[in-house]
Amino acid sequence: MGTGPGAIEDLSSRALTALKNAEVIVGYKTYVALIKSIIVNQEIISTGMTREIERCAAAIEQALSGRRVAVISSGDPGVYGMAGLVLELLEKEGELNNIPVEIIPGITSATSAAARLGAPLMHDFAVISLSDLLTPWEIIEKRLEAAAYADFVIVLYNPASNKRNWQLKSARDIMLKYKAPTTPVGIVKNAARQQEEVYITDIENMLIYPIDMLATVIIGNKSTREAGGFIITPRGYTI
Amino acid sequence: MGTGPGAIEDLSSRALTALKNAEVIVGYKTYVALIKSIIVNQEIISTGMTREIERCAAAIEQALSGRRVAVISSGDPGVYGMAGLVLELLEKEGELNNIPVEIIPGITSATSAAARLGAPLMHDFAVISLSDLLTPWEIIEKRLEAAAYADFVIVLYNPASNKRNWQLKSARDIMLKYKAPTTPVGIVKNAARQQEEVYITDIENMLIYPIDMLATVIIGNKSTREAGGFIITPRGYTI
Repeated sequence: MGTGPGAIEDLSSRALTALKNAEVIVGYKTYVALIKSIIVNQEIISTGMTREIERCAAAIEQALSGRRVAVISSGDPGVYGMAGLVLELLEKEGELNNIPVEIIPGITSATSAAARLGAPLMHDFAVISLSDLLTPWEIIEKRLEAAAYADFVIVLYNPASNKRNWQLKSARDIMLKYKAPTTPVGIVKNAARQQEEVYITDIENMLIYPIDMLATVIIGNKSTREAGGFIITPRGYTI
Repeated sequence: MGTGPGAIEDLSSRALTALKNAEVIVGYKTYVALIKSIIVNQEIISTGMTREIERCAAAIEQALSGRRVAVISSGDPGVYGMAGLVLELLEKEGELNNIPVEIIPGITSATSAAARLGAPLMHDFAVISLSDLLTPWEIIEKRLEAAAYADFVIVLYNPASNKRNWQLKSARDIMLKYKAPTTPVGIVKNAARQQEEVYITDIENMLIYPIDMLATVIIGNKSTREAGGFIITPRGYTI
């Protein structure tokens, strides 16, 4: 299930009910902490970053033993989240149709970040993760090229981390081949969480900002503009 | 604000609270009907389809008169929704920074449809509206080409309507230039609403299905597969 951008207020009541009814909650410890106010007596299985396979395997083991298990992802579980891995592992173990699985959507970073910036996603957009841990950089590069060439609004997930520090600059170089340096860029860290940071800049200056693994970056199309502290991508209405 | 795919259970509590606290609710009548169970004594201003500008203008007029107004969009208000138009009209009227505006995100069709299909959006994806009412078809076509060429998972919004009946076939022809005819396709109509319909097919056969303006269509990338009634796009984990 998806827990949204971070604040309890952004959870759907479907997600909230599932969490309350769960006997076991499985998740990355940072995300478990975000929902701790609604944990009563559910068992918690939490592990650190990059232990996704381990977490899913533990969740499946619990579910096969007959318990109601909620696997949590921040944002939406189906967008670079845990939903796919749960299904893949169930398939591998031959249990795909032996456990009832419900995927509960959540508010993904693209739209929670967009809401803090104004309305940058009012037209066609591409969501691209800059993490090359599981995807060859050549594929990411090809997608950045294609999306910039076709004037998509572009949303970057996982733009940088301590270990991945050159990908964002490469992505920006590709953007500059097709998009004007003055194209608006929005950066949102910790959307809707207490430590939220929101920056509006442009492609020229975007690298000045503290972009890390908690940030989502939105790069406009050729109609996107900044007005009164908002980023607006017109939908095309004549007003 | 976004009201999610349609069921009250998919609203965030932030959206629910805003609706309850509003003095006026403005929206397309079909979407107002979806949230009628939480309307107590708020004034309702609802108009038909394609009256978006009129609705926004009415909302702004109410807000300028000092009332708390909630403008509702189904899904997420920032994805082909009302958020951009509200900001554009406020800007045009010179009122952009004179009224406090909060954009409350919702669960957009891409992820609500994905959740019903399994996990098709586990990798980079492009969201493209096939509506050429406000966008020249050449731009849409260019984006379909670029997204298919770069092997994005592709989510089609507004795939067809009574008046727009050839765009989907054109989009499919473009997909077939780059993607295998056996590429999984998921079609979700009325996600999470009572009349929900979910179909899993492939590019070859997708036109057989009843795709209309209530449908969201998700077309896989080259790794996407169907398993046990789910569409799965692997994220790349070695399991």
